[in-house]
Amino acid sequence: MVDQRDVECMAHALRLARRGRFTARPNPCVGCVIVDANDDIVAAEYHHKAGDAHAEILALQQAGDRARGATLYVSLEPCCHEGKTGPCTQALIAAEVKRVVVAMQDPNPQVAGKGIQQLEQHGIQVDCGVLTPQAQELNAGFIKRMQSGIPYVTVKSAISIDGKTALHNGTSKWITDTAARNDVQRLRAQSDAVMTGIGTVLADDPALNVRLTSSQLGLDEEVMQPARIVIDPQLQIPAQAKMFSLPGQTIVFTGQESANRAQKNLTNCEVIMLEQHQGQLDLHQVLQQLAQREINSVLVEAGSNLVGNLIAQHLVDEMIVYVAPKLFGSAAKGMAEIGAIDIMDEHISLEYKDVRRVGNDLRITALITH
Amino acid sequence: MVDQRDVECMAHALRLARRGRFTARPNPCVGCVIVDANDDIVAAEYHHKAGDAHAEILALQQAGDRARGATLYVSLEPCCHEGKTGPCTQALIAAEVKRVVVAMQDPNPQVAGKGIQQLEQHGIQVDCGVLTPQAQELNAGFIKRMQSGIPYVTVKSAISIDGKTALHNGTSKWITDTAARNDVQRLRAQSDAVMTGIGTVLADDPALNVRLTSSQLGLDEEVMQPARIVIDPQLQIPAQAKMFSLPGQTIVFTGQESANRAQKNLTNCEVIMLEQHQGQLDLHQVLQQLAQREINSVLVEAGSNLVGNLIAQHLVDEMIVYVAPKLFGSAAKGMAEIGAIDIMDEHISLEYKDVRRVGNDLRITALITH
Repeated sequence: MVDQRDVECMAHALRLARRGRFTARPNPCVGCVIVDANDDIVAAEYHHKAGDAHAEILALQQAGDRARGATLYVSLEPCCHEGKTGPCTQALIAAEVKRVVVAMQDPNPQVAGKGIQQLEQHGIQVDCGVLTPQAQELNAGFIKRMQSGIPYVTVKSAISIDGKTALHNGTSKWITDTAARNDVQRLRAQSDAVMTGIGTVLADDPALNVRLTSSQLGLDEEVMQPARIVIDPQLQIPAQAKMFSLPGQTIVFTGQESANRAQKNLTNCEVIMLEQHQGQLDLHQVLQQLAQREINSVLVEAGSNLVGNLIAQHLVDEMIVYVAPKLFGSAAKGMAEIGAIDIMDEHISLEYKDVRRVGNDLRITALITH
Repeated sequence: MVDQRDVECMAHALRLARRGRFTARPNPCVGCVIVDANDDIVAAEYHHKAGDAHAEILALQQAGDRARGATLYVSLEPCCHEGKTGPCTQALIAAEVKRVVVAMQDPNPQVAGKGIQQLEQHGIQVDCGVLTPQAQELNAGFIKRMQSGIPYVTVKSAISIDGKTALHNGTSKWITDTAARNDVQRLRAQSDAVMTGIGTVLADDPALNVRLTSSQLGLDEEVMQPARIVIDPQLQIPAQAKMFSLPGQTIVFTGQESANRAQKNLTNCEVIMLEQHQGQLDLHQVLQQLAQREINSVLVEAGSNLVGNLIAQHLVDEMIVYVAPKLFGSAAKGMAEIGAIDIMDEHISLEYKDVRRVGNDLRITALITH
């Protein structure tokens, strides 16, 4: 039986956690609320930035003596290992909190539950499982990487009602209005990386950066630029591509037999060579490489080939589709080349998660369920 | 300054009017509420069926003596001409109502305002314009036919998220779930006619009928079947097409040089010959013919050619698109052949009117604004 006060306090902790969504990476977003024996909230904090103190530590500092005998709500199991900062479990034990309520265990299979265990061994009551789905959604990328070794992949598309991403001649500026395009900026700001294909680079020379300012994102901190990832089997990217001149990291994945980086004179980027099969890179390997670089989440903004390949290989978790109230007609370009399917049951299945108006456009968020 | 009580009572009249949406055609839906001097509702009625009494007459009967000195709310200007029933204005004058509140004038340009004028000439206070947009929406088809001589045309499509209406091999059963398909049944039941093209008839042999029962539609009356309209320039429809064997009217539009009806031995249908140009019928003429047969609203359930032609010729008012949470990929069939457009500004523009979940699917209603 879930206690209503527990739910309220955890919801508070989750709202706080969410404030870290533009800055905490590669760490998970974590929020923490401390409630004393009089049911007063004596601390409310969140994890701002990797390397900075964890939410629990900030909250304990804020609560001071009032943490003794209190209940601490935290949206993720407290760590029990030395990371960039000391283990949170030790701090909780030292502060003599009475009870810890946790939304979910640490998703790292080698940690999961050990922090909780340590607290319990020191006589702290731990209840785990309040608002777990909400906590999981908040850190979908971190969880995915910890559990599967690849990032959480979201495909963003902007389409007309009839499912077209560009006119027959490739024109795609602009399908959606300013409100939707600013919404995409916020998606990028929440993503560890933005991925595109060489086709899009050659056609549009995109910046793939966050152009909203800290204040537009409601941040005290500087905007973190997502890493830019280009899938470029033949290493066709020009040295003067716009993205190379912008702040932030660029990673180009290419095939082994391609011209090497020195020949292309590419600067300000990392070039990763992978084996290729029939001119295609192994996209699962690409994602593994990104996960190894602590990239939790990838936003794909690409043409129908790369999008289709990722979907067909079951590497996409979520789609965010902006639907403009327009019709382009059947001659225009489609969203995803996933190969012809012959019977209805072979389609890719999704599940709607959220549908809302963004300005004059519509935003559909759907999870791929296969 | 709009009076709040007027708005409430008119909203009540409009809710009543809406009950006639499956049965009143070709008449408009009309609701009527009578409120006496004590502000008590003494009558609340709607127009059920063409040939039956109008809403005002039913309400006056219900109110009896209490109509004297009362305020009557009616969602459409009372008629002042002899139709299938006597003029309502005379009945209102005879009942000595004090005030009449009207949502909108009669859209027939030859009537508009004359009913109101007649009431005013007999000393009845008339206020027109309460909840006008809602009243217009309720009778969009009737208004369109009266004002432009063609019906209100709604295109219904069922698509995947990537805008596909069928697999590459034509398979389209079923894109959406039962809830959405039942919703389409209700759309059909509200439509005067359902239109398709010969391609769909030859491929699917559709029934295009309402299969929900009276009780499923919440009706006391029998279900009225929409007329079935087939656009068939070469008169290719087989005599054994399923729709010919079903209750209700079927109209086949064909080109002049086509084989005539006698040769095809078509029974249970009307065949209308029109001139054709390059193998195409003039769709505006088709709609005019339908309007002349008192068809106010046409629901188009057709393939991408007919849908595209109607849209490209600016004959479509509204689109109702059911979006299934599926991806079919670019090889599958598109929604509308409207001809390639070269610059972004040439697209067909729409405006979202309503977006909601229907079962597992999404329903987007949008008005074409050109």
